[in-house]
Amino acid sequence: MKKSIGANTIIYPTPVFVIGTYDKSGKPNVMTASWGGICCSVPPSVAISLRKATYTFGNIMEQKAFTINIPSLSHVKEADYFGIATGKTTDKFSATGLTPVKSDIVNAPYIKEFLFNLECKVIHTLEIGLHTQFIGEIVDIKVDEDGLGETGLPDIEKIKPFLYDPGSSNYYGIGEYLGKAFSIGESF
Amino acid sequence: MKKSIGANTIIYPTPVFVIGTYDKSGKPNVMTASWGGICCSVPPSVAISLRKATYTFGNIMEQKAFTINIPSLSHVKEADYFGIATGKTTDKFSATGLTPVKSDIVNAPYIKEFLFNLECKVIHTLEIGLHTQFIGEIVDIKVDEDGLGETGLPDIEKIKPFLYDPGSSNYYGIGEYLGKAFSIGESF
Repeated sequence: MKKSIGANTIIYPTPVFVIGTYDKSGKPNVMTASWGGICCSVPPSVAISLRKATYTFGNIMEQKAFTINIPSLSHVKEADYFGIATGKTTDKFSATGLTPVKSDIVNAPYIKEFLFNLECKVIHTLEIGLHTQFIGEIVDIKVDEDGLGETGLPDIEKIKPFLYDPGSSNYYGIGEYLGKAFSIGESF
Repeated sequence: MKKSIGANTIIYPTPVFVIGTYDKSGKPNVMTASWGGICCSVPPSVAISLRKATYTFGNIMEQKAFTINIPSLSHVKEADYFGIATGKTTDKFSATGLTPVKSDIVNAPYIKEFLFNLECKVIHTLEIGLHTQFIGEIVDIKVDEDGLGETGLPDIEKIKPFLYDPGSSNYYGIGEYLGKAFSIGESF
């Protein structure tokens, strides 16, 4: 039996993206956002949605660039803080002791201590409603050696990302391996 | 030490959305897509990106509506199959024995046996490149009683969704509870 729960922004899984930007003066900022995901394979692109009221919104409008930094389990507290504090009045890097590194490709900082960093340049901006969607072309991905598998590719089991449940406002880790995509469903 | 792995469509977590649509003749179809995510709070909206070559692309252009059905661990095989087969030549509902139910709000079918179903009407269409992005306003969410918690709200631990790792093409479950958002990071 199905129950209607009304219109709501709940879906599973929802990511925890830490967005890195510079403001006009070059001050690095980070903000946690969960509205987004990959949106195109060619060019490789990712979408993030932000409210105009955020400091990051103004930074992206100014710089047309951002990074997405994926927090590991060990940084869940920092990632949550980045969604609570505002860069308007706070230096979030100083507060947490994390290190901003200027991207060599786009005008945005990534977080040195986070294992997985995407560097993006804005190619589309779409007004939807309360949120504005920025589509960033992924121009490079930097991965810490600690997050690489034996093949030299990023390894989710080493990176240990986590996710957000918008229904309960809880964070959850990544669970057990279930099988290979484009393979385990072949037998129907 | 960071290593550049080049431009790629890898991010964590990436969802497994099963998109439900009708074709011109009213035949229900489902397709698995992993490029997407929530994109606005007001109106509550979700983005999905599809290649023009898919059967679902034509269906959404025709009907301006779709559902997103979230598979549970028990349906990982069906979800994978829905990303392999094409609705052009296959009746995926017949093949898997799952049941299409016509939404009472939008002209799209949802999967009865999947616990969590979003009903969406298209409010924006954006050409990005290989993929076209459809933004759907979430007009209702249907949840099976088996997926509801004691408060009457959807419970991720009962729904048991899973995720896709685009780097390895593997599926992973949802892991352990880590803490409360907008709370555990307050102490910085």
